[in-house]
Amino acid sequence: MHGASYPRNSFPDILLDELRALIGDRVTTNAAVRERHGKDESFHAAHAPDAVAFARSTEEVRQIVVACRAHGVPIVPYGTGTSLEGHVAALHGGVCIDLSQMDAILRVSPEDLDATVQAGVTRKRLNEHLRDTGLFFPIDPGADASIGGMAATRASGTNAVRYGTMRENVLGLTAVMADGSVIRTGGRARKSSAGYDLTRLLVGSEGTLGIITEVTLKLYGIPEAISSGVCPFPDMAAAVDTVIQIAQSGIPVARMELIDERQMAACNAYSKLDYDVAPTIFFEFHGTPRGVEEQAEMVKALAADNGAPGFRWSASPEERNRLWQARHDAFYAAIALRPGAQGWPTDVCVPISRLAECILETQADTRDAPFPVPLVGHVGDGNFHLVYVIDPNDPEELRVAGEINDRLVRRALAMGGTCTGEHGVGYGKIGYLEAEHGSEAMEVMRTIKRALDPEGLLNPGKVVGPV
Amino acid sequence: MHGASYPRNSFPDILLDELRALIGDRVTTNAAVRERHGKDESFHAAHAPDAVAFARSTEEVRQIVVACRAHGVPIVPYGTGTSLEGHVAALHGGVCIDLSQMDAILRVSPEDLDATVQAGVTRKRLNEHLRDTGLFFPIDPGADASIGGMAATRASGTNAVRYGTMRENVLGLTAVMADGSVIRTGGRARKSSAGYDLTRLLVGSEGTLGIITEVTLKLYGIPEAISSGVCPFPDMAAAVDTVIQIAQSGIPVARMELIDERQMAACNAYSKLDYDVAPTIFFEFHGTPRGVEEQAEMVKALAADNGAPGFRWSASPEERNRLWQARHDAFYAAIALRPGAQGWPTDVCVPISRLAECILETQADTRDAPFPVPLVGHVGDGNFHLVYVIDPNDPEELRVAGEINDRLVRRALAMGGTCTGEHGVGYGKIGYLEAEHGSEAMEVMRTIKRALDPEGLLNPGKVVGPV
Repeated sequence: MHGASYPRNSFPDILLDELRALIGDRVTTNAAVRERHGKDESFHAAHAPDAVAFARSTEEVRQIVVACRAHGVPIVPYGTGTSLEGHVAALHGGVCIDLSQMDAILRVSPEDLDATVQAGVTRKRLNEHLRDTGLFFPIDPGADASIGGMAATRASGTNAVRYGTMRENVLGLTAVMADGSVIRTGGRARKSSAGYDLTRLLVGSEGTLGIITEVTLKLYGIPEAISSGVCPFPDMAAAVDTVIQIAQSGIPVARMELIDERQMAACNAYSKLDYDVAPTIFFEFHGTPRGVEEQAEMVKALAADNGAPGFRWSASPEERNRLWQARHDAFYAAIALRPGAQGWPTDVCVPISRLAECILETQADTRDAPFPVPLVGHVGDGNFHLVYVIDPNDPEELRVAGEINDRLVRRALAMGGTCTGEHGVGYGKIGYLEAEHGSEAMEVMRTIKRALDPEGLLNPGKVVGPV
Repeated sequence: MHGASYPRNSFPDILLDELRALIGDRVTTNAAVRERHGKDESFHAAHAPDAVAFARSTEEVRQIVVACRAHGVPIVPYGTGTSLEGHVAALHGGVCIDLSQMDAILRVSPEDLDATVQAGVTRKRLNEHLRDTGLFFPIDPGADASIGGMAATRASGTNAVRYGTMRENVLGLTAVMADGSVIRTGGRARKSSAGYDLTRLLVGSEGTLGIITEVTLKLYGIPEAISSGVCPFPDMAAAVDTVIQIAQSGIPVARMELIDERQMAACNAYSKLDYDVAPTIFFEFHGTPRGVEEQAEMVKALAADNGAPGFRWSASPEERNRLWQARHDAFYAAIALRPGAQGWPTDVCVPISRLAECILETQADTRDAPFPVPLVGHVGDGNFHLVYVIDPNDPEELRVAGEINDRLVRRALAMGGTCTGEHGVGYGKIGYLEAEHGSEAMEVMRTIKRALDPEGLLNPGKVVGPV
């Protein structure tokens, strides 16, 4: 994937004229803008599009798609560029449609606990807008990603264990398909058995089946009480056993974030904390004042049963904010371990019964790596991330990181897990899909792709690869 | 849909020989067996298949599909026949594959809170099997349906408000596709961003895209404490307002079942109860002993604020069982209003902000109907059912019921709702899908159907109709 070359057709000048006629100076071929749009936050090589078009409405997206299609030119949708597997790389050139100017919050219904937003609205902006309503949108992938991008990559994050992922929280979508048709999927009813689930088909399709332009989302009441807790564990197995018992007891913990000893040391240094350097879980509890206290007591008792008597509970917002800021800064703390380095985040997810085993084998496998490899985990879901803190210009480090990653993914798959819990496929994980799903299921995916995008113009080379 | 005729090809004798060679006397053309397999529990006319094949494994299903396809013969999958929109009717004849003998529970993982079962396992049998593990599978559509059928129709029921529907609770599937390939979708990881969501595409596809043969399900710990409550309301609006406030407060009620005054009278008569004849909500609370008490107190206070001071709470299992037995018997109580009658259940679901309005308009519209029309509702989801208690041999009653139903569905769609919250499309709701989803989205559904089943052999005439 590094330095690999992909065939590009020459870009027709006439298309540029047509796009200018549609959206004026909101289409550009400026080299810096193109370069920025061909690169996400990962280590994956940049592939700049030939032009970038800033759309402001579903109708403009439709017109751009129709124009591109008439010339056989690829189309790559772009939200905030915070993806991690090369999703926005224009492997075969073409037009990047930047949706960030589609930033209108179209409707909020406090009674129905739902909202409809344009694809470019970011999650933080939505939550700022919601503040006065007493509602919030919980999905939090760390980055201030766009809602459209989060839907397209089936994002989740730290509180999926309680609130689910984009799969569970998107009620409906508007999308522009490859043939220029505009579909509205799902709806505002909380549930429906009316036909094929096009919403879920588009969620996670990464712009390869349609371009998501509007999203209807579930919202939640801001909990009456929020409290947090920190608990160091004697070892990884004790931490994971505690989490399994929490799940079996049905304790509705909102967040359970595992941090290994290497990452804890990095966080202590970066965020000026003084936590024990041990496998540690950060907890967050949502509910009534009595409810969160009860949840915390139950978690404390389970942790103590597993040899971890050090659970420290806090209802103070300051302490909670400090804690979660440190968790959110974990990636930067990791990179700060080594000045000038870049982070290569991994993303496997396994059945929780195999999580301790998967983590321990992986830690053993990375012990001799020539770079730091701290670990964080959304442990309630069985999802964890390593960060390879590498020098991206050192081919040897990239090679070693790639090999460790390959072994990690194959280990997770052998345990019944997935090559990506929440980051998505892009072009970085494309080589693992067949191993995960089998050739028959992949052929079904390719059949769907061919049927809905017969010319292969929507984000080509991603998810299902060449079809 | 009544008395409509559908073209049938003559059934090739040689296929029967081929099926006998595959599964011996587990294929039959016995008239009574065929008749039974062409009819579900609804009023929809029976359409018997030409033959019924009882499969015992995914491999047998695959072989039957391959044999039928070679002769261009339609295939209709069958679980327990408890669907309600004519899903199992063999409109164009062909082979019914009865999956009820695929009743093995293949794996239960208490640590992962999941299980894998063959499609023919019913939900009650699964829960009996699980009893000793302290786990349960919550989805409860009333009927003791098969898990495969529940997945195929995207079923839900009384506790979807807390636990979700089959959409949220199926982790993965095995399915036989029209071309005879066998795919395994999803997996055992709690979340994944690895490719198109084939699991959700098959859930709710009613056997038109593939035949589900195995299902991996989420399970839950049996709550430490369960309690129930009953509350009569002065009117429908007060009941729905209370539900909206419960949802906004994030009180995790497990069940909230609305029963209108007509249904309450029917339940009192049928189940020998003495509840007030008023719009009433049955509640169920799951949690810790302290938690369920707190939930009940909060609900009681909200109901009182809405003019309903009569909330009656009970932790007694006997009273709870009596209550929920009455709720489960509501359909029979409705039919018992009129000896010899059959029930035509409706199934719209609307945004909850429109629920009271939708119910009130519908009650006004049915006031002069020449048959009883009681109402029950999964009110936390905005989903409610009328039962038209009709004489199925009276064309005039069928006509009036059809017209009321048509107005009901169009009212729900105009309010942003769906024509079916949980029963599915079958052939009974097929005429409403375009009004609900629009022609462009329907064309996407038909494109997918044509791509995956180009000869239209899988449950033809259902969901997307002729393609």
